[in-house]
Amino acid sequence: MAVLLAAGDGCDAVIQSGETEFLLPIHDDFQAHVLPPPPDELARLQRALARGRPGRLVLQVEVRDGEDRLAARFTGRYVAQRD
Amino acid sequence: MAVLLAAGDGCDAVIQSGETEFLLPIHDDFQAHVLPPPPDELARLQRALARGRPGRLVLQVEVRDGEDRLAARFTGRYVAQRD
Repeated sequence: MAVLLAAGDGCDAVIQSGETEFLLPIHDDFQAHVLPPPPDELARLQRALARGRPGRLVLQVEVRDGEDRLAARFTGRYVAQRD
Repeated sequence: MAVLLAAGDGCDAVIQSGETEFLLPIHDDFQAHVLPPPPDELARLQRALARGRPGRLVLQVEVRDGEDRLAARFTGRYVAQRD
């Protein structure tokens, strides 16, 4: 899971909220891509974890249909902390 | 589906967006309840459909754990129209 990759080893993560916008009907295969979070948000997450505090991260996921059209967009708000 | 019940026979509905807030971890059985939409919102949906226009409806769903605690809340925005 992308939040755990961002948080590093020895962390656990939970989702706080998720929002999906459905833009186009999907009748076929699709692909979901997590967009890389901005470097400053990633750095803030890692600073919080290094201080033993929970860190927050917002991730965006794009869902594209077989013709590479943006069919849905997901935004997830996560909290990570050291195990 | 609750939107189709609200819209009546001969209608189709799609979801535009959905947001879920995760409030408590769920480790066991849970129940999801659609909250009845406010009567004025239901009336507005049905007026739009009666005029041959698409109608919108926001529905709230509560997810409760085995001890009847509110564990998650879902808000869905739907559009219904006559087939």
